Amino acid sequence: MAQERPTGLKANKGIELLTFGTPNGIKASIILEELKEAYGKIGSNEDYTWQAINIMQNIQKEPWFTKLGPNGRIPVIVDHDNGGFAVQEGLAILSYLTRHYDPEHKFSFTDPLDVSRAEQWMAWQHGGLGPMQGQANHFNRFAPERIAYGMQRYTGETERLVGILDNHLKDTDYLVGNKYSIADIASWGWVNALRFSGIEIGDFPNLKAWWERIASRPAVQKGSAIPSKSPFGNAAYAERLETDKEFAEKENTLKDQIKAAKEKYGYKYSSP
Amino acid sequence: MAQERPTGLKANKGIELLTFGTPNGIKASIILEELKEAYGKIGSNEDYTWQAINIMQNIQKEPWFTKLGPNGRIPVIVDHDNGGFAVQEGLAILSYLTRHYDPEHKFSFTDPLDVSRAEQWMAWQHGGLGPMQGQANHFNRFAPERIAYGMQRYTGETERLVGILDNHLKDTDYLVGNKYSIADIASWGWVNALRFSGIEIGDFPNLKAWWERIASRPAVQKGSAIPSKSPFGNAAYAERLETDKEFAEKENTLKDQIKAAKEKYGYKYSSP
Repeated sequence: MAQERPTGLKANKGIELLTFGTPNGIKASIILEELKEAYGKIGSNEDYTWQAINIMQNIQKEPWFTKLGPNGRIPVIVDHDNGGFAVQEGLAILSYLTRHYDPEHKFSFTDPLDVSRAEQWMAWQHGGLGPMQGQANHFNRFAPERIAYGMQRYTGETERLVGILDNHLKDTDYLVGNKYSIADIASWGWVNALRFSGIEIGDFPNLKAWWERIASRPAVQKGSAIPSKSPFGNAAYAERLETDKEFAEKENTLKDQIKAAKEKYGYKYSSP
Repeated sequence: MAQERPTGLKANKGIELLTFGTPNGIKASIILEELKEAYGKIGSNEDYTWQAINIMQNIQKEPWFTKLGPNGRIPVIVDHDNGGFAVQEGLAILSYLTRHYDPEHKFSFTDPLDVSRAEQWMAWQHGGLGPMQGQANHFNRFAPERIAYGMQRYTGETERLVGILDNHLKDTDYLVGNKYSIADIASWGWVNALRFSGIEIGDFPNLKAWWERIASRPAVQKGSAIPSKSPFGNAAYAERLETDKEFAEKENTLKDQIKAAKEKYGYKYSSP
């Protein structure tokens, strides 16, 4: 179902989400789906409103959008129940929504140490895994030329980072307090795109179990299909490898290029 | 004064900071100096303890360090007054220290919208300005080869980001609520290194005025000299250009390389 090109806000109560189906975008739709399922409402509304902001069309750079999110990036939320207050940056959206609409702390914490632990893991994702895996995607897939140095630098750094998650998940099912929370939601979308980024999630068994555990949640399935089901998730990617021979060949070529890039620069995997 | 190579914690009360003189490192020392000056103490101590973690020697990758900060990066703080609780990630350190040791909210906020605004600007720095300017430094200075694509990509993205700060500072002296806070401290260290990153801060007049306003604070001067005064700050850099002819020539060559890289890839500055 084609949506008209957005030109401004369209709701007047509850939360309005401006988003696209990226690892950062689905952070916001997943927590909104979780809150909706847990409480039967979000603010004054039983649902939230969303609009697809097609980043290939640079809608996020238009003045009506940057007035709300000056950085010109998705996701952005607008809280019509709070004077139209706008929030940009995934970490700040997860914090805002739970601070205001998770009164029983089902996805957040009250213990001050757990509050800080969640903040640390969210910041770790926001400043590390997100930007670095994003650069891996850029150099492995989107850059106009294949630059070996960039490919190995960012694929390698992403591996180091997911190695840290894998190690942390050795003795716990979730990142903080052995309870599913916004700390997990922050990283899940990126981990769900690891295969697309050139990294085999099966190499990180604790992480893979965590990824599957969270993927099985109905709200995660609903939220990660906003605005539409992504073809880049680990499951969709593996399925396409099986069924699309031409795709599998292209992906094998890419994997060989990444491997050659690592060898050229003497890359060695290292993570605690 | 040479310090012994750190091999573990050395304090047993108050806050202990493990750091190095980088834009991320000085976030932590600046807020600690501000709290010390404002309250005459931090927790049970009138001062904080710091150790220099020489990142060129990879001390931050040693097991005693990664036990405290699993990401293997500086800065990390340890709160000996709170059971030795360790905090990694600059954003989480700024939040933790003000939540626990800024009871009068001199550098933080109580109004829920301002709390979110500060969080948004800190996340913007933590996920945008920091990682992207860091990559600019890498491709412009530290990478084993000069790769034009990386140079223009990250110098350009850093310019876009500081353009957003400059625009926001048009009508306000500080990022949130016209009050100096952790939101400003998060970005100041990076802005203070703009010239080193190949960007002339004078091109962004509101940002330059903000940078100078904050640079004049005694606690900022003290904090940004922990563990030692950086030669990479905008003022030190400009001074060296004036007095060191050989340095000036090398820097001019670098500026020409960045300019040529931008031209090669059709870079155009664009920021709201």
